[in-house]
Amino acid sequence: MKVVATLAVAAAAFTLAAPASAQFAKPEDAVKYRQSAMFIMGQNFGRIGAMVNGKAPYDPAAAAASADIVATMSHLPWPGFQPSTEKVTETKAKPEIYTEQAKFKQASERLQAEAPKLAAAAKTNNLDTLKAQFGETAKTCKGCHDDFRNK
Amino acid sequence: MKVVATLAVAAAAFTLAAPASAQFAKPEDAVKYRQSAMFIMGQNFGRIGAMVNGKAPYDPAAAAASADIVATMSHLPWPGFQPSTEKVTETKAKPEIYTEQAKFKQASERLQAEAPKLAAAAKTNNLDTLKAQFGETAKTCKGCHDDFRNK
Repeated sequence: MKVVATLAVAAAAFTLAAPASAQFAKPEDAVKYRQSAMFIMGQNFGRIGAMVNGKAPYDPAAAAASADIVATMSHLPWPGFQPSTEKVTETKAKPEIYTEQAKFKQASERLQAEAPKLAAAAKTNNLDTLKAQFGETAKTCKGCHDDFRNK
Repeated sequence: MKVVATLAVAAAAFTLAAPASAQFAKPEDAVKYRQSAMFIMGQNFGRIGAMVNGKAPYDPAAAAASADIVATMSHLPWPGFQPSTEKVTETKAKPEIYTEQAKFKQASERLQAEAPKLAAAAKTNNLDTLKAQFGETAKTCKGCHDDFRNK
């Protein structure tokens, strides 16, 4: 029974661990995937930023649509960060992502916790509410970029 | 009144037309945005494809997650297709996108109609159901690529 249980645990561990590395045909795809998600997220976050900073007219519907995209995108980049991609040169990702994995995961989770709040704030149609939550969300971007992204 | 009505119509048309071109700081960003959305969509569609074609084990939860991403992504690329991007060289987009806009729009809407059905099919946890809808969705990809994308 012990062997069966051990095999079951090993199989479960493999099931949990497999998707991240198996998702991409090659490391370049993993990099492109995470960069694509970050770019779409950044574009939409920037549109909201322009509104809350008075550089674009406040358009509640557009802000809500962008915030929903930010919330969806906030979950996507992370499987793309895997040690196999360290050889890919076209990236600003720091090696600390792989040497301080727990810290990096925590930073990614901060964004994933704040992004849905941004989507909710955008739906209030209140610019001050949106602005406040934009600031909170932006902190999670900056916090992670400061530690884990090269300039 | 006629002038007011005409102005109102013009203003409405501008409001409808403005977001697409105003969304991006430069044409290169519009291209990168649509390519990013297509890449994320393609990666996830490919993961489902591998399952329905027996090249990867059927993982219902992973298939459902990927199908949801495909459905979300199906709406994103289109504002990135705008005449200002015709000067950008790093793209396979054919000029017909801008000379046959109604046809292109129709093709994009076919995908947006099939992608939510793919997400629903994935949630049935039935591989045959998923396979059938994968095929229907793939037709919309191919149809548009045949007409509007260079090899």
